[in-house]
Amino acid sequence: MAPDTGILERIATGSGKQAVHVQTKTKQAWGDSSWTDGRLLAERYREIRRFTSTLIEPLEAEDCVAQSMPDASPTKWHLGHTTWFFESFVLERFVDGYRPFHADFSFLFNSYYNSIGERVERPKRGLMTRPTLGEVLRYRAYVDEAVGALLAKPSGSVPDRIRALVEIGLHHEQQHQELLLTDVKHLFSLNPIKPAYRPEAPSPPAPLPEGEGSRTATDPGPAGWIAFDEGLRWVGHEGNEFAYDNESPRHRVFLDAFKIADRLITNREYLEFIDDRGYERPQLWLDEGWATVRAKGWQGPSYWYRTDDGWRIFTLSGLRDLEPHEPVCHVSFYEAHAFAWWTGARLPTEAEWETACGRPSPDGNFAERRRHHPVACGPAEPGAFRQALGDLWEWTQSAYRPYPGYRAAPGALGEYNGKFMCNQFVLRGGSCCTPSSHIRATYRNFFHAAARWQFTGIRLAREA
Amino acid sequence: MAPDTGILERIATGSGKQAVHVQTKTKQAWGDSSWTDGRLLAERYREIRRFTSTLIEPLEAEDCVAQSMPDASPTKWHLGHTTWFFESFVLERFVDGYRPFHADFSFLFNSYYNSIGERVERPKRGLMTRPTLGEVLRYRAYVDEAVGALLAKPSGSVPDRIRALVEIGLHHEQQHQELLLTDVKHLFSLNPIKPAYRPEAPSPPAPLPEGEGSRTATDPGPAGWIAFDEGLRWVGHEGNEFAYDNESPRHRVFLDAFKIADRLITNREYLEFIDDRGYERPQLWLDEGWATVRAKGWQGPSYWYRTDDGWRIFTLSGLRDLEPHEPVCHVSFYEAHAFAWWTGARLPTEAEWETACGRPSPDGNFAERRRHHPVACGPAEPGAFRQALGDLWEWTQSAYRPYPGYRAAPGALGEYNGKFMCNQFVLRGGSCCTPSSHIRATYRNFFHAAARWQFTGIRLAREA
Amino acid sequence: MAPDTGILERIATGSGKQAVHVQTKTKQAWGDSSWTDGRLLAERYREIRRFTSTLIEPLEAEDCVAQSMPDASPTKWHLGHTTWFFESFVLERFVDGYRPFHADFSFLFNSYYNSIGERVERPKRGLMTRPTLGEVLRYRAYVDEAVGALLAKPSGSVPDRIRALVEIGLHHEQQHQELLLTDVKHLFSLNPIKPAYRPEAPSPPAPLPEGEGSRTATDPGPAGWIAFDEGLRWVGHEGNEFAYDNESPRHRVFLDAFKIADRLITNREYLEFIDDRGYERPQLWLDEGWATVRAKGWQGPSYWYRTDDGWRIFTLSGLRDLEPHEPVCHVSFYEAHAFAWWTGARLPTEAEWETACGRPSPDGNFAERRRHHPVACGPAEPGAFRQALGDLWEWTQSAYRPYPGYRAAPGALGEYNGKFMCNQFVLRGGSCCTPSSHIRATYRNFFHAAARWQFTGIRLAREA
Amino acid sequence: MAPDTGILERIATGSGKQAVHVQTKTKQAWGDSSWTDGRLLAERYREIRRFTSTLIEPLEAEDCVAQSMPDASPTKWHLGHTTWFFESFVLERFVDGYRPFHADFSFLFNSYYNSIGERVERPKRGLMTRPTLGEVLRYRAYVDEAVGALLAKPSGSVPDRIRALVEIGLHHEQQHQELLLTDVKHLFSLNPIKPAYRPEAPSPPAPLPEGEGSRTATDPGPAGWIAFDEGLRWVGHEGNEFAYDNESPRHRVFLDAFKIADRLITNREYLEFIDDRGYERPQLWLDEGWATVRAKGWQGPSYWYRTDDGWRIFTLSGLRDLEPHEPVCHVSFYEAHAFAWWTGARLPTEAEWETACGRPSPDGNFAERRRHHPVACGPAEPGAFRQALGDLWEWTQSAYRPYPGYRAAPGALGEYNGKFMCNQFVLRGGSCCTPSSHIRATYRNFFHAAARWQFTGIRLAREA
Repeated sequence: MAPDTGILERIATGSGKQAVHVQTKTKQAWGDSSWTDGRLLAERYREIRRFTSTLIEPLEAEDCVAQSMPDASPTKWHLGHTTWFFESFVLERFVDGYRPFHADFSFLFNSYYNSIGERVERPKRGLMTRPTLGEVLRYRAYVDEAVGALLAKPSGSVPDRIRALVEIGLHHEQQHQELLLTDVKHLFSLNPIKPAYRPEAPSPPAPLPEGEGSRTATDPGPAGWIAFDEGLRWVGHEGNEFAYDNESPRHRVFLDAFKIADRLITNREYLEFIDDRGYERPQLWLDEGWATVRAKGWQGPSYWYRTDDGWRIFTLSGLRDLEPHEPVCHVSFYEAHAFAWWTGARLPTEAEWETACGRPSPDGNFAERRRHHPVACGPAEPGAFRQALGDLWEWTQSAYRPYPGYRAAPGALGEYNGKFMCNQFVLRGGSCCTPSSHIRATYRNFFHAAARWQFTGIRLAREA
Repeated sequence: MAPDTGILERIATGSGKQAVHVQTKTKQAWGDSSWTDGRLLAERYREIRRFTSTLIEPLEAEDCVAQSMPDASPTKWHLGHTTWFFESFVLERFVDGYRPFHADFSFLFNSYYNSIGERVERPKRGLMTRPTLGEVLRYRAYVDEAVGALLAKPSGSVPDRIRALVEIGLHHEQQHQELLLTDVKHLFSLNPIKPAYRPEAPSPPAPLPEGEGSRTATDPGPAGWIAFDEGLRWVGHEGNEFAYDNESPRHRVFLDAFKIADRLITNREYLEFIDDRGYERPQLWLDEGWATVRAKGWQGPSYWYRTDDGWRIFTLSGLRDLEPHEPVCHVSFYEAHAFAWWTGARLPTEAEWETACGRPSPDGNFAERRRHHPVACGPAEPGAFRQALGDLWEWTQSAYRPYPGYRAAPGALGEYNGKFMCNQFVLRGGSCCTPSSHIRATYRNFFHAAARWQFTGIRLAREA
Repeated sequence: MAPDTGILERIATGSGKQAVHVQTKTKQAWGDSSWTDGRLLAERYREIRRFTSTLIEPLEAEDCVAQSMPDASPTKWHLGHTTWFFESFVLERFVDGYRPFHADFSFLFNSYYNSIGERVERPKRGLMTRPTLGEVLRYRAYVDEAVGALLAKPSGSVPDRIRALVEIGLHHEQQHQELLLTDVKHLFSLNPIKPAYRPEAPSPPAPLPEGEGSRTATDPGPAGWIAFDEGLRWVGHEGNEFAYDNESPRHRVFLDAFKIADRLITNREYLEFIDDRGYERPQLWLDEGWATVRAKGWQGPSYWYRTDDGWRIFTLSGLRDLEPHEPVCHVSFYEAHAFAWWTGARLPTEAEWETACGRPSPDGNFAERRRHHPVACGPAEPGAFRQALGDLWEWTQSAYRPYPGYRAAPGALGEYNGKFMCNQFVLRGGSCCTPSSHIRATYRNFFHAAARWQFTGIRLAREA
Repeated sequence: MAPDTGILERIATGSGKQAVHVQTKTKQAWGDSSWTDGRLLAERYREIRRFTSTLIEPLEAEDCVAQSMPDASPTKWHLGHTTWFFESFVLERFVDGYRPFHADFSFLFNSYYNSIGERVERPKRGLMTRPTLGEVLRYRAYVDEAVGALLAKPSGSVPDRIRALVEIGLHHEQQHQELLLTDVKHLFSLNPIKPAYRPEAPSPPAPLPEGEGSRTATDPGPAGWIAFDEGLRWVGHEGNEFAYDNESPRHRVFLDAFKIADRLITNREYLEFIDDRGYERPQLWLDEGWATVRAKGWQGPSYWYRTDDGWRIFTLSGLRDLEPHEPVCHVSFYEAHAFAWWTGARLPTEAEWETACGRPSPDGNFAERRRHHPVACGPAEPGAFRQALGDLWEWTQSAYRPYPGYRAAPGALGEYNGKFMCNQFVLRGGSCCTPSSHIRATYRNFFHAAARWQFTGIRLAREA
């Protein structure tokens, strides 16, 4: 999801109405039915907020200031902005006499605009050296305490409206957890000394759970095709669990018969494309893709460096050799599209992807595992849709457009819903930097076709 | 269709294969079954080429040189490029000993690129003051004579391959007829003395055919909604008539129940949007649309000028007052989307549009009528989908993407098919500058969301 | 002189006062004392205006429309703008009841701005396809007739004010004669078919006057140094002949002893610089010069093309081989500076140049000769400052700044005088496209350091 | 002096030769003859380095990372770069077995380029979040210790070459002290919460030394004119004290008689220019100046904010009301030129300024005083050239060009000397952020005409 296009932009203000698809008819409405009262919600709040804290542990104060490009934000901004969400949408509305931490912060950390010109210009976030990291962390603690107090009520006493807003704030926080990591990676990659965010994955790095691949992987073997017949399919969110409004309404789509690959494309496979002069042949590319390749001088995925000794890549653990069996990562939609074209296949539509994904395993290489890099695929099993969730966001060939019957809420909400549904493509499945409780089969992420700094990869599809 | 993305870019070279969907199993394969032999084809060739000549009659040599923006091309280039098509794809392949008119022209008038850097850079076409208009017209005559000779064979003797290429060349010519007009309009609009392409519509402006509206129109009254039930619909081209490859394969789409307006939005209706501060409220716009509004300073559709005495507009007949009952014209996708949002409705999908259009009347306000401006809608008839073809291209909410199963042909063709299916939106229905024999219900035109120099308008849709 | 910074911008309007340094105390004030009455002035007027006409003879109407870059203007604009000068500053002021040719032309052909936004934007001059060339030529004829009538008075009866304005208009016309040629050259150079403005120099191309070089020249031999002692020097215009205001006041400058080369740098000499990796070594360049070299990808002077068979150059007579003994041409100040640095010498200051030039011969390779290209230097004569006037404008190391005591006139004049004295460098001596009666030793031309489309060359100087 | 164009860029490397004009024939060669031995040099070293430390005391680590524009550098970079100078040019050359602090730092903190592409791109310095401020401070301490040890020799034992390099390194450090302050000011000005670098000037703000003005000043009264006769003047550096190479050779300049103002222009005087629509009248401006005014939307000097209660300005002590009697500050050359034109006067040439300055008082409002803002002028004294040194850099009308006979040293030096002598203007006199021992009457600072973030002001001159 585009960095700022977090929930903040898709939720209302003022009106107390929200665009997110939250049905609260039952106590089981929450992602995990085991926390149905304020204490459980408070616990979940603490847990997610604490995870943010662990993510910044390896960073220095200086690292938290810089903004490496307009699409990225400084760590400090992520920390403040997610906190501001709770302050503005929960505390200021529901806590009588709540005193904001600092009068300026609602201006500094607001990405919402109801009147133009009042926000910090997005590309200038890196110039806000004040407030310091210390102040922002105090802001977090202040707000956490207030939210904790608000939720510290007897079971069931937290009104639905508050609960819905806290939950959406937590999903918002999780989006920014992923962005924080991808933005730090981008920033560090531009430093000539190429610092490592976390020198190594937490030790012991392994053994991996059965069937989940490994760091020094063996060849996963050829990908298999999973076949689907033509027919009407239901697509989109249903049920009581949390989902964003862009996943609704659930609706029918007619799909022709298709086949979809049972795993992601690997570095080795992608290298064949490069070696076959994939970056030099315009006929493989979309017109705007080719223009981008030439304008940017792309010769491989982002964070790849050609050396006399072969390709090396930059990861959140620093520079290292390219691992051939890992999934290829940090490719744009243009590259995914050109690669697919070169193979004679194509990218899946989002409806095909969702159909193939079905009800995926909740296990996977997510942010909590702290590898922050995709791992090679485990062994094939007939019909198994491997690497469904986690590892990499998968480009689909679907333009990001509203589902039939989608209608943003009236009121202030109207300003934000759907406003990004233009010139972007849908990605599915979450990545190695996505928190595991944040992702689901119907989740629609979206980025511009040229974006490469997210953990994005390729899965193929074809006609049956 | 993007100016250069005419058939030239979507057809093969070299291989003799073409991407266009031309079935030639029967003699009735041609758009009009009455010309099944070479003489009829030759006649059609002469007629379409001659229409190009009539279009440039009002122009001076100087007018034919300039290029007003990178998206537009000089008239001289349109004239040469369409001619080059016949020379390269027909004469050089099928006429033994054909001697090209001029060695340099295949370079100058080629928009096709199989090796990079060898074409005239697109934004520099206006600097090619040589060859002169006179030379280009001689080029046209030279090629016309050669094509005429090729086709002057006894009935039925023209091989299908030649016939297919000639026909596609004629459709290509027709695309450029429309572009020639829109590009001249854009050029003249930038001249401070605002020249008229054709001072007035051909006199007498005429009693219009019954039910087709008039120049000084009466209020068409409120638009009606035409309702459609949910169901599987077939979309895309079928049959033996000519169609571009992007209109295929014909396929099924499931549509929820919907309603669609029975006419285009008028200037008067659009003025209400402006007067309601439509161009000042970010919440009505797609995010990129709002950025465009601000960057470009838009305050109304293209070619609208606010004066002390009200709005005036620039037409191909010069400046004149805004006519409230004419359809609003020269709006971008962003404006169409914002307007629709403001009304509480939305734009139709292309599948909805095609479903509603059905088998439209071949009558309409097309290029041949030489008004080159949309006219007010005629009286409503229950259930009639008015202004279906002609008048204005209608923005749909559908991103321009391939139909299921679409696959560009292999070979050189591979370079071109589908390469523009990214970050553009589909328009339907043709305009007052489209030749009548060029348009059909399944025709998919496409432009970027910010484009305004084509004759583009708005039709609304909504959930049932 | 920057294209638009002709006299038009440096003379007043409205007030009837002018910034040019015209002393009119005697009847001999005019450049050539032999035409002291209206008939002589009228004759001179006709002659200069007619020369403009001869310059456009080789052009097609199409050639006169296009503008190849913001710094250049279309031929049609040059033709209209110089005519507008006479209409606005002479006819409208001094001819009772004068009726302007066309109401719009004072807007279209005005480069003067007293209120912002009312002129045609400079980079859009190429979009004014109307008025046509024919109309502009009729405009010229109309104004010529009116000026002729005004001047057709008995001897001495033309008032000084009119005479001064007519003369300045003629110098203005001559500036634009040179610009017309350089702008056409630039335009044609961008056409892939590289048209020749004039296929060959007028035949017979020669014999050249004794000592003036030749087209297929022999090696001029090493350049000599002419030495000057230190001392106070008078610099700037004096006397009754016409000069621009920027050549005044005449003033004293103290010069240290210096030496100056007796001829221009040749292509052969410049090739040594290229072959010594002159375009690859940042240490030879001014900082902004090096940035320009890299940004533009310069590898040699403008209009030079490296081929497998050696360098070829584009001239107003088309492409041809590089002639080693001709002066190097179309170099920027940056290149002149880097070349001089590489030799261990430097560029002269404008005061040194003027001192060395003294009272130059009025002969030279000027526009009237219609070679429109510099010729190789004739044989050396001890102490002779060869190639002083004509052939090429010579870059000096002097920034274009006002002479001590320079003060632009008050009133409307104040808007224009001296406004270009910033970030430009002075050139001296005129070129092969400068009319011979337009140039003199004190003439100060000026361009930005990166400009290359004028006929600019290099003369070295050094400390004594 | 342009941020990077410190001595670093103008001194050699490798060869051990330097371009700076250091005569070392006598023991009295150093700026202050009282420190002729190593201990005195070491003391001066410590003092100047310590002053840098005091300058960063008010800053947070976060403040030291950000780069607010390409012309500015992060504080951390200033700290590292000046240290790198001593390490590279002194320690690595003259200390046997010196072990660099960190292998990467010579890359990170080098602004010198002998091979392209190896430096950190200038606009990306703000992305180097590592090394941290702490590491850079340790780098400073490490180098300081090593330099201290090198200089800790008996009197006279420090060889001239080392002494010269240490001294130049100290002047380099002082240049960066000023830049550090101006860059922090620029950075903080962009922060919406407008932090103060130092909340107030050190208390007590003090009785100012007699005749030096005050913070809450009284009107200094009208400026007086100091008159000078025409004549030959010596300009440039002479003697044994330190000076940069661009101040040499000392040479003669002929000056016409002139008058120069005895003080700087005040805010009140500049407000009259604004109120007289100075920023709206193109005729007052240089052509490129006017283009800049429009492109940037300037309506007053930098750091001025118009409010309902009058102008407020941003200073290093935060936002406060405009003080009418203080000198106007943060104006570009364009504004200084337009203001002067508007008054009917002009800016002085640098030769006039130097002539008028004579041997100025060493007292003044310099960096050590820690006001970091100009103060109002003290009372007039007949013939006294007030505000000569300190307070503000004064724009002259002289383009920054080499003095006659200036020649950069051969060798690696050749890469750097004089390379900035193009399209910049000379400023004289130092500012409130210049260390007092860094400035002198012959000192030539230079910036582009549009630069405003330095402490720049206006002094007028006129013909006699």
